[in-house]
Amino acid sequence: MKHYTSINDIDNIDAWIDEAKIIKANPLKHLGLGQNKTLGLLFFNSSLRTRLSTQKAALNLGMNPIVMNVSGDAWGLEFEDGTVMNGNTAEHIKEAAAVVSQYCDIIAVRAFPTLTDKAKDESEQVMRAFMEYASVPIVNMESATGHPLQGLTDALTISEFKTKAKPKVVLSWAPHIKALPHAVANSFTQVMQKMDVEFVIANPEGYDLNPEIIGDTPIYHNQEEAFKDADFIYTKNWSSYEDYGKVINTDPNWMITKAKLGNAKFMHCLPVRRNVVVEDAVLDSNSAIVIEQANNRTYAAQLVLKKLLVNV
Amino acid sequence: MKHYTSINDIDNIDAWIDEAKIIKANPLKHLGLGQNKTLGLLFFNSSLRTRLSTQKAALNLGMNPIVMNVSGDAWGLEFEDGTVMNGNTAEHIKEAAAVVSQYCDIIAVRAFPTLTDKAKDESEQVMRAFMEYASVPIVNMESATGHPLQGLTDALTISEFKTKAKPKVVLSWAPHIKALPHAVANSFTQVMQKMDVEFVIANPEGYDLNPEIIGDTPIYHNQEEAFKDADFIYTKNWSSYEDYGKVINTDPNWMITKAKLGNAKFMHCLPVRRNVVVEDAVLDSNSAIVIEQANNRTYAAQLVLKKLLVNV
Amino acid sequence: MKHYTSINDIDNIDAWIDEAKIIKANPLKHLGLGQNKTLGLLFFNSSLRTRLSTQKAALNLGMNPIVMNVSGDAWGLEFEDGTVMNGNTAEHIKEAAAVVSQYCDIIAVRAFPTLTDKAKDESEQVMRAFMEYASVPIVNMESATGHPLQGLTDALTISEFKTKAKPKVVLSWAPHIKALPHAVANSFTQVMQKMDVEFVIANPEGYDLNPEIIGDTPIYHNQEEAFKDADFIYTKNWSSYEDYGKVINTDPNWMITKAKLGNAKFMHCLPVRRNVVVEDAVLDSNSAIVIEQANNRTYAAQLVLKKLLVNV
Repeated sequence: MKHYTSINDIDNIDAWIDEAKIIKANPLKHLGLGQNKTLGLLFFNSSLRTRLSTQKAALNLGMNPIVMNVSGDAWGLEFEDGTVMNGNTAEHIKEAAAVVSQYCDIIAVRAFPTLTDKAKDESEQVMRAFMEYASVPIVNMESATGHPLQGLTDALTISEFKTKAKPKVVLSWAPHIKALPHAVANSFTQVMQKMDVEFVIANPEGYDLNPEIIGDTPIYHNQEEAFKDADFIYTKNWSSYEDYGKVINTDPNWMITKAKLGNAKFMHCLPVRRNVVVEDAVLDSNSAIVIEQANNRTYAAQLVLKKLLVNV
Repeated sequence: MKHYTSINDIDNIDAWIDEAKIIKANPLKHLGLGQNKTLGLLFFNSSLRTRLSTQKAALNLGMNPIVMNVSGDAWGLEFEDGTVMNGNTAEHIKEAAAVVSQYCDIIAVRAFPTLTDKAKDESEQVMRAFMEYASVPIVNMESATGHPLQGLTDALTISEFKTKAKPKVVLSWAPHIKALPHAVANSFTQVMQKMDVEFVIANPEGYDLNPEIIGDTPIYHNQEEAFKDADFIYTKNWSSYEDYGKVINTDPNWMITKAKLGNAKFMHCLPVRRNVVVEDAVLDSNSAIVIEQANNRTYAAQLVLKKLLVNV
Repeated sequence: MKHYTSINDIDNIDAWIDEAKIIKANPLKHLGLGQNKTLGLLFFNSSLRTRLSTQKAALNLGMNPIVMNVSGDAWGLEFEDGTVMNGNTAEHIKEAAAVVSQYCDIIAVRAFPTLTDKAKDESEQVMRAFMEYASVPIVNMESATGHPLQGLTDALTISEFKTKAKPKVVLSWAPHIKALPHAVANSFTQVMQKMDVEFVIANPEGYDLNPEIIGDTPIYHNQEEAFKDADFIYTKNWSSYEDYGKVINTDPNWMITKAKLGNAKFMHCLPVRRNVVVEDAVLDSNSAIVIEQANNRTYAAQLVLKKLLVNV
């Protein structure tokens, strides 16, 4: 594996989950692996879990993390080829990525989508530019269309909490006041498609995800029907894909409630808006495993960094 | 000690001062104590001394510090219970504190008061929420009503510089153009009340601190009278407590001058506005011990972290 | 050497270059030198290369880097003497520099010029204040009039890439839409004057650098003439020195092109605006050594920190 920028970079999800569990059981075992190596964490957007857990993962491997808020700390970056740079951008990604590669052994990048330009977002301009122009491995800390560290985390968490060989997992859209990216939903869908689970998606009409990602996964526009016999209900808001980046529905009936949840475990990548996406009664119950899920962010990141370090 | 969020968490100030002096004499002695442990420093507000000295203290104990500017780097946090979060806050403290606890062995938090809502400030909403929802020890890096790392620092500094068994210590209000918190004055008052000193407070009428904190401490509205035979003059502006958060007096006659100081040592938590709070002649003289005081921030923080690490 | 704030602090450029090459060949050799020592990096302005490479240099020496964005993270600093500080600045540099010295073994500072007040910029107010009031060594990470870490980097890079004993090096002005500082051009000029090279400067009329820095260095107002038989073309925009801080010429004919470059190597400190300062064809060719140059930032910084640590 050269980079980790997509769920497609996971060659064998079961083997990865097994290795993540071994790391979790003994997180400091490979403390020597990253000695005197540097992880650059470049944030174009806000972050709490990703920022902390990826640093923690690096530290558990003995690496030195260096964090930058690209926009605030450095220069406006240009991603277009051939541009006459007489505008707001002061540095081209060709130089920036190559330069950061001089100081960092691995570069992790977070860059959210525009949600206004579908083609641009789907081109994954930022992540692809880093992959092309950096000379070191790139880790996706959430890009325009994917959040593969979260997806790997979610697979590990489901593997830990499942009580039957093939659990039923539902990804459910829930209402939100803002237009949110599809990245988490996409990566979760992709990783569930690799696992031995019964996986379905529930969302209102007009909110179907990218058909290329959905593939054969069943979609329900009736949440109640989708939730029947569910073992895990993974909730996430996303904006419309068809009417790209738009909020076309805020129906509070799609909020997750204790009554709807039944015996299923409740998962969410966080941050989550209480009593908008999910009611307090769910989050404050033992059915919610969101904190355990967040904890697994460290071990997912540590597995990815370990694999890249071994290649380095 | 489970957390360090108030001067009340100090069980024996003399023993603590003694231990801080031992740490200061050999700051790297416990370098193994914090190995592979992480201190999360969460800043809701600006910081220079606290930010640097608390990191330095962590490093002296072998810990890995991770710093976050909560507002700029992460998400707007919600502290109210039961809220429908369809406004500006994207994550509830219940999740945030629990999540950060997954990555950090100790969490240090700075969160200033509103100075507009007395009840809210006195409820110490932010600090209490972290104490309630985090699963690791919390350190107060200045909250709405207290700055106990500064208070401990001040006690250590007075112990080092005193030339008699029971020195006279005056906390004096001084003018300032902005409405400032009561946190430093409160914690200084509380820690002086625990020490074997003659402690009095000088402030204009209308500027008496919270009566519950003042207790039996004598208050002078005449600065000259208060300063008589003083060994230490600790200066700090604060806004009115009675007319909560208001600047009702900027009388320059309360500024500290060389003439007023006499043979007393001048202390201040810094930052200090020169020639507003105190004249240049004081700060530029040997009577000022503000830099030595700032230096002690490291050892106060290191003592607190050490105590919490031993418990961890 | 007490501080490193100017090219004038280099006593013997050839010996320094030799030592930098030895460090580059074995960058972790002195990992023990900085153990348990802290480098404070204080940024008043944006930075990418300097921010990352100086941290990397510190880590290669075993130091703990602590980074602060002074304006955003801490308090507005006052640099004028005797001021009544009832305005926007909350802390005087006298306290700030002395305080940071309590926590950091070396302090590195970046502070750009105003470009509006020539006398103030030339007084190097910020750098001088840190040198005066700090009690530890100061490193200039780009000040109003100099960027000596960049200059040292450039000397090392030319030494590595030269193919004749005494290469011809041209510093050429190039167009830019914004008013930029003279710091990089000044330090490059100063370091070239110390080296065994044929050094000339090319810039439009009205753009001659400070005559005190130019000294005997030939200045050409005809770029083509200057570039004749050049081995290295170092490009950089700067605003007018005579008509201080003004952009009085944006003539695109001064942009560096592949045709103009000939067999010379292209150097630039970065960030660089493509197709404004230099065309894509230059940067995307093997003639450009800007990435190797950026890589050398680490070893220049490491040499400086090593020298200061040995003195510490």
